[in-house]
Amino acid sequence: MGEQNSVTAAVIVIGNEILSGRTHDTNLHYIAGVLTERGIVMAEARVVPDDEAVIIATVNELRARNTYIFTTGGIGPTHDDITSACIAKAFGVALHRHPVAVKLLEAHYEPGQLTEARLKMTEVPVGASLIDNPVSKAPGFRMENVFVMAGVPRIAKAMMDGVLPTLLEGPPIHATTVSCTLGEGVIAEGLGAIQADYPGLSVGSYPYFRAGQIGVSLVTRGTDRAAVDAATAAIKALVERLGGAAMVAEGMG
Amino acid sequence: MGEQNSVTAAVIVIGNEILSGRTHDTNLHYIAGVLTERGIVMAEARVVPDDEAVIIATVNELRARNTYIFTTGGIGPTHDDITSACIAKAFGVALHRHPVAVKLLEAHYEPGQLTEARLKMTEVPVGASLIDNPVSKAPGFRMENVFVMAGVPRIAKAMMDGVLPTLLEGPPIHATTVSCTLGEGVIAEGLGAIQADYPGLSVGSYPYFRAGQIGVSLVTRGTDRAAVDAATAAIKALVERLGGAAMVAEGMG
Repeated sequence: MGEQNSVTAAVIVIGNEILSGRTHDTNLHYIAGVLTERGIVMAEARVVPDDEAVIIATVNELRARNTYIFTTGGIGPTHDDITSACIAKAFGVALHRHPVAVKLLEAHYEPGQLTEARLKMTEVPVGASLIDNPVSKAPGFRMENVFVMAGVPRIAKAMMDGVLPTLLEGPPIHATTVSCTLGEGVIAEGLGAIQADYPGLSVGSYPYFRAGQIGVSLVTRGTDRAAVDAATAAIKALVERLGGAAMVAEGMG
Repeated sequence: MGEQNSVTAAVIVIGNEILSGRTHDTNLHYIAGVLTERGIVMAEARVVPDDEAVIIATVNELRARNTYIFTTGGIGPTHDDITSACIAKAFGVALHRHPVAVKLLEAHYEPGQLTEARLKMTEVPVGASLIDNPVSKAPGFRMENVFVMAGVPRIAKAMMDGVLPTLLEGPPIHATTVSCTLGEGVIAEGLGAIQADYPGLSVGSYPYFRAGQIGVSLVTRGTDRAAVDAATAAIKALVERLGGAAMVAEGMG
């Protein structure tokens, strides 16, 4: 899928609460969707605990090989919010209280309510720029190619939406879905041949059970619109040749 | 949290459809919950694409440092189902058609319906044992400490439930939740002091917005029941000292 020109991203979900099963992460799915819409290829994602050594190593490994890194979680005022300090260490710089962040929180809290703990939320690595938080004011930040965002989904989404217009876009990724009620095992051979005919595309087969009925969504993705359309037509023809009814739609189905 | 005796696990979610935002993974959350119930600490999770080199490297990295690895996705009959072949390569062994798996599928499909593509689902690394699939028969497998399961949530859940009784259990992890409507910034200092008093426990602070109301869940976890209870009492007293109402419950809230 045009790897030579691709803009890639990785997501790091930070928080013991995800790994313990307490919290069902929804940020990864949201971020994946909006990146894909902009032609940015999410190369991988990781969920890591609130552990300094792990966070630092993960950030440094992934930022070296991706255009962008997005982290969620760990930027609040409590002792278990260690992301900002870890990012500073990953970049080998100090933390400082960003003067604009301090002003934002001074304006947000009643006099006497801006505790030392809350002031911790103004601390960013030296050299970082702020990411707006329209929900609860305490900002995220960008340090080089690393975007550090909150874990609370409403805030993570707002931060991501604010960041999106600043990102490089990759070549648009076109997608189609051919749905049918044939079994995967029936179409597999023909589908594999179509994937082989279009090595520049990604052809995925996603079975589902819906209302007691087995079906499969055959998703073709790629940056070459004509190739996507040709492969889609070939998949539709395959389904019909095998006696199925093919429903074709734009998008990932 | 008793790392010296801990049983650890990592999850590898395999599939382009998760990284593209097409599919919202739910298997990770399910697996995390049932492992935690058995005292197994999920150390990390990764989402990786349908890419042989990435899958092999990830499996080998994580299986070397965790008691168990669980993978989901990529064991169906189509060309994009490459997990079994990757696991075989990760272990340096051949794939073979497991005779029991062949019998299972022969019994499941009508005569003539057991295509070569479907027979691909009987292929496991030499030395692997099968994991039962009560939903659609095609089995998963266990290769040493790596459990390879389907991506379809209903099947992944059934496979996981079947595997659970075979796993080593860690020391039980006790958890309590103190909920209140104080801001995190108000309780942060006192909470940090309580965490410092109980270094063997994990104290997490998880803010939420619910029905227009800000609140926070303060979750204490650990294998030492008495310490969990003492820390919980300290957190409850902290909340009340700060003028809040504390709701205490068992579990992660």
